[in-house]
Amino acid sequence: MAVLTLGTVAFDTIETPFGNSGKVVGGAASYIALAVSHFVRKQHLVSVIGEDFPQAFLSELSGRGACLNGLTRVEGGESFHWSGKYHEDMVGRDTLATDLNVLIGWEPRVCKSGNNADFVMLGNLDPTVQLAVLDQVAAPKLVVLDTMNFWMDVALDNLKNIIARVDVLTVNDEEARQLTGEHFLPKAARAIHAMGPKTVVIKKGEHGALMFQDEKVFFAPAFPLEKVVDPTGAGDTFAGGFIGYLASRHEATGEVSWEDMKQAVTVGSVMASFTCEAFGTSGLQALTAEDTLRRWEEYTQLTACGPLVWPA
Amino acid sequence: MAVLTLGTVAFDTIETPFGNSGKVVGGAASYIALAVSHFVRKQHLVSVIGEDFPQAFLSELSGRGACLNGLTRVEGGESFHWSGKYHEDMVGRDTLATDLNVLIGWEPRVCKSGNNADFVMLGNLDPTVQLAVLDQVAAPKLVVLDTMNFWMDVALDNLKNIIARVDVLTVNDEEARQLTGEHFLPKAARAIHAMGPKTVVIKKGEHGALMFQDEKVFFAPAFPLEKVVDPTGAGDTFAGGFIGYLASRHEATGEVSWEDMKQAVTVGSVMASFTCEAFGTSGLQALTAEDTLRRWEEYTQLTACGPLVWPA
Repeated sequence: MAVLTLGTVAFDTIETPFGNSGKVVGGAASYIALAVSHFVRKQHLVSVIGEDFPQAFLSELSGRGACLNGLTRVEGGESFHWSGKYHEDMVGRDTLATDLNVLIGWEPRVCKSGNNADFVMLGNLDPTVQLAVLDQVAAPKLVVLDTMNFWMDVALDNLKNIIARVDVLTVNDEEARQLTGEHFLPKAARAIHAMGPKTVVIKKGEHGALMFQDEKVFFAPAFPLEKVVDPTGAGDTFAGGFIGYLASRHEATGEVSWEDMKQAVTVGSVMASFTCEAFGTSGLQALTAEDTLRRWEEYTQLTACGPLVWPA
Repeated sequence: MAVLTLGTVAFDTIETPFGNSGKVVGGAASYIALAVSHFVRKQHLVSVIGEDFPQAFLSELSGRGACLNGLTRVEGGESFHWSGKYHEDMVGRDTLATDLNVLIGWEPRVCKSGNNADFVMLGNLDPTVQLAVLDQVAAPKLVVLDTMNFWMDVALDNLKNIIARVDVLTVNDEEARQLTGEHFLPKAARAIHAMGPKTVVIKKGEHGALMFQDEKVFFAPAFPLEKVVDPTGAGDTFAGGFIGYLASRHEATGEVSWEDMKQAVTVGSVMASFTCEAFGTSGLQALTAEDTLRRWEEYTQLTACGPLVWPA
């Protein structure tokens, strides 16, 4: 069950009230691929890097089963670089720099075996690029799309075109509201269903995630961390854990059930909590299956509650 | 198992982007007492009203088992009145008027049988008033305190005095942060434990509630409503359901366990969702045990998830 991921493989420079990352490896596809590697042996990356990108990280991805034939390396180019500064609350953040570099003019190429991928994770990028990649996949079984408010502002028509073609949309609560004009999330989710996606995952960061499918709803809290070092990449880790888990279930059972979806949201949430505990990808790189399973047990206890006893 | 509640019995005038309540019955103790009445036959109210307060609502409270001997009625006085306007998001709000009226100079009197109350709910009010009431209860088994940022700004010393004497503190996330100087909630909860309360409930409104006790933690989501008509009183309904349920469990078993506390948080959350669906107390007044139990079943399904299946 191969997973194909589109997204940035890049550098981040992150400032928080508690420290600075320096220039570290980041990018949506880096987080997604690391998370996916826990669940499937075969995955494909579609991205672009400059000459400055470290071979060591690429070797780590290859070692985890990622085919990098769809990773364009631009001679003399510089990799995409994002720099941001988190507020005191470790939630709000200001962008200090967005150096698109090699992203400018990049035309994504899916390699031959990537064409046959079953699960497709379209990380947050220009909807035109997302469409170009989806057009190159022959018969995907499940497509997950991540996007953000920026594309709603500047490329709404193309965004709606790609939304119409995916199975799962992941957005945050404000984005769900902006996209639909509905404030209350059950209504916003229903409006998104009507645009195409059967399943809608609304990410609320430190407040957890809500998933809607038809009239079903599931809520996954965020793991309450003692300390958040750097939330960058948490949403991408979540997405990678989510689609990776679904791919592994499909491999085992030939389908993706609502139960699988619920478990996928919880495992994504738990994996994202590890990303928050260190700068960049380092928390996720160090993560083992045992760590994930141990915290998942703790996580499910968070909401475990016996039946009410009503007074006579 | 008698519950004694201190809080306002008052009028609210509420504006939302979707409608206006006109002048309706409100006040923390009104919501708390209505919620408590689902769980115990005997409760005491300590509050103050003016001559303008409707007898019909008092009769409803009496009919639900509330002793009103501690309810001072000021001849010629006007009841406390709060007026506010909710923002588009139905979360933020601006206060338009706070007419203290009969609250000014009021000295709370607990009646003779109220002196022996077992469970005490100190609704949000001046900590001096909360202290005066607690001093009049002989040997409470469990005391819950609600407060807000305003008292942290203007009466921090007295607030700390009352916090030191209670078993459970309920505050929202920003208030927990302000009170302790700790941003991350597990740390803030630990700092509050150190001030006295064994149990801390952090209310996050539409994002649910986190409860901490020693090193244990429990999370209760908010029920995802199709539409919020008026969130006023949701926190008080939550508190009333919480302490009412605990009182009923203590009556049945002679103790209050962590399991009881978890169930109390969930039933409080579910009852609060009914308050949000109508202006003022009307949603709560119409609520039956069957409604609560039915929604509670739906509510527990929100987070119900089978075990992860890790790929081989």
